[in-house]
Amino acid sequence: MKDFTFVNPTRIEFGASKEERIGDYINEFALKKVLIVYGSERIKTNGLFARVAHSLEVQGIAFVELGGVKSNPVLSKVKEGIELARQAQVDGVLAIGGGSVLDTAKAIAAGSLYQGEVWDLFSGTEIKAALPIFSIMTLAASGSEMNPGAVITKEETAEKFFIHHSLLFPKVSVINPELQNTVSKEYLVYSASDIITHSLEAYFTAKERPELVNLLVEANIKTVIRTTNTLLAEPNNTQARGEFAWAATLALNGSTLVGIEGFSYPNHMLEHAMSAVTDIPHGAGLSIVLPAWMQWYHKQNPEAFTRFAREIFGEQTAIAGIESLKAWYEQIGTPTSLSQAGIDEATLEQIFKTLERDTYSWGLNEIYTPAVIREIFAYAK
Amino acid sequence: MKDFTFVNPTRIEFGASKEERIGDYINEFALKKVLIVYGSERIKTNGLFARVAHSLEVQGIAFVELGGVKSNPVLSKVKEGIELARQAQVDGVLAIGGGSVLDTAKAIAAGSLYQGEVWDLFSGTEIKAALPIFSIMTLAASGSEMNPGAVITKEETAEKFFIHHSLLFPKVSVINPELQNTVSKEYLVYSASDIITHSLEAYFTAKERPELVNLLVEANIKTVIRTTNTLLAEPNNTQARGEFAWAATLALNGSTLVGIEGFSYPNHMLEHAMSAVTDIPHGAGLSIVLPAWMQWYHKQNPEAFTRFAREIFGEQTAIAGIESLKAWYEQIGTPTSLSQAGIDEATLEQIFKTLERDTYSWGLNEIYTPAVIREIFAYAK
Repeated sequence: MKDFTFVNPTRIEFGASKEERIGDYINEFALKKVLIVYGSERIKTNGLFARVAHSLEVQGIAFVELGGVKSNPVLSKVKEGIELARQAQVDGVLAIGGGSVLDTAKAIAAGSLYQGEVWDLFSGTEIKAALPIFSIMTLAASGSEMNPGAVITKEETAEKFFIHHSLLFPKVSVINPELQNTVSKEYLVYSASDIITHSLEAYFTAKERPELVNLLVEANIKTVIRTTNTLLAEPNNTQARGEFAWAATLALNGSTLVGIEGFSYPNHMLEHAMSAVTDIPHGAGLSIVLPAWMQWYHKQNPEAFTRFAREIFGEQTAIAGIESLKAWYEQIGTPTSLSQAGIDEATLEQIFKTLERDTYSWGLNEIYTPAVIREIFAYAK
Repeated sequence: MKDFTFVNPTRIEFGASKEERIGDYINEFALKKVLIVYGSERIKTNGLFARVAHSLEVQGIAFVELGGVKSNPVLSKVKEGIELARQAQVDGVLAIGGGSVLDTAKAIAAGSLYQGEVWDLFSGTEIKAALPIFSIMTLAASGSEMNPGAVITKEETAEKFFIHHSLLFPKVSVINPELQNTVSKEYLVYSASDIITHSLEAYFTAKERPELVNLLVEANIKTVIRTTNTLLAEPNNTQARGEFAWAATLALNGSTLVGIEGFSYPNHMLEHAMSAVTDIPHGAGLSIVLPAWMQWYHKQNPEAFTRFAREIFGEQTAIAGIESLKAWYEQIGTPTSLSQAGIDEATLEQIFKTLERDTYSWGLNEIYTPAVIREIFAYAK
């Protein structure tokens, strides 16, 4: 095993009605006023916002609001939040939503205590301070609820970059599976694709992986496949919803990265360019990119790919494993080709241009040359 | 999944030579003087103590020492440490050793800030404060390096009781697998038995377990069996040593207890009485108790036992799974019967008496009646 440091201080409050105690959780940190960040107004009509507001009021915690965060969250919304956070002098940020909302909240938490342009923090300037962050998750996918990362797109330049700092671990994240029962089938399957890709990036690219980590990753993927199938048939199966949500958390909370050596995130690099250019949902972009990338890459790590085929799909060859994954994506209804997603040649050229610019910032420019990237996307046509 | 709260703030520093940076880690917490707790004097002769002392000195951290902690750690040693910690006015505790040393250090950390008798904290009085705790692990078994529990024996009464409080999470625990290469084969296999029992108590006794948790537990057990076999043949296999150590940590850091309902620790209850009376190493006691308990209990949870048999040993029946575990214990050389451990009838009667007194404090007195306990131990003759 390679040397590692593991620490994850986020507290998870998992279970029915836990969002009604968010005021208590925030009060433990002696906060007086928070910025609530959210996406659609649905949380106003379905009662969630009111329950949260009541819980805060009981503890004497004031709040201001920033709604309208969209998937593939954007820098302009972060800046709006920073301004609001400063004006209202909040001392914490509470996200109610999925990964996009929480990522926006994290960027606001760091940006509002930084004197310069917040985009600096996405371009190499170290984060030195951040407001405490809390979350109530209404979508399970990103793992953001138990990690210190966030991804934001700068609209003008279609740069989809990330920040990562221990100050960005949420203090407390609430996962109430029942809040996620109303997630659309579409977003459920995009989420499944996202979690599976989080699990597989290091599994396939690492030079060395301890067997124990392989087993943990495979446990997670098996769980996502099983519970997705269950939830498509029974959206109100809270047991499956809970396991799905916890698999999402484990896939990116650091526990599957211990002791592994030399891994990278090529699929996320490729997809970030796609969604920055086209605004395709992240998980839908990943279900197109991952099988294509696997077809291009598998000969570089045959051991991992035949193992994946065997353990996840009971298949004997790398190719059969890749085909099984693709078939399952098609079965559940997440796209596996550019055409299915309506991405035409002209748009693809824009994606290539974006990647030509961005591979360097991922440290992957030497492997992912323009020619290689064209080769990978050719598998996705 | 049952509701749960999960938080584990301990930082793990895993890898070669990490003990040489212990001064830096402790310095991050601005401590000035620590109590070093350890077991045998071997760490003085093999250079480990000197490396740690040097690392502390470089950071200007003073220290006092308490050596001589034995396995099945005792209250008198804790009291000695509390007195020393108070006299020397230390502001932290550093354990160098295995679970017994760290448990002693935890009890000292809490006891030295408690005005009354430290045993009160083992008998229901809530812990309100504790010195910050650090550890350098020379034995992997207890999981104490990443959890907030500790077990201590009061010699006069042979009460082996535990404390558990979030203040007792170590701040930083160092796991350098190379430091564990010199663990004797005897203690390696006792440790394997300990880790497996930690993994299985809830697996067998919980009323409800999410499938994802089953998979994580099985991943851990498979890893322990595989790496134990490797290490018996190649004690210096640092890769296997590392995976073994990490499996020990995961088995009791809370990650395999999420979302499960209604579990208990009967094997630990039974073994604690054994080791309190006889001073048998904890893992050796567990390898006697667990297969016996499994034979007595398996019909109460046939699903879990047939699953265990199938997933861990490729067997089809509960009984075949139990026999396979027992056979593996015998193969690696940890005892599976009372006679192998030299426990005679008279001693067994003492164990029964101790249990008759202690089952209540485990909340298990209604199930584990004197007759039931005799029945279980009859399987271990």
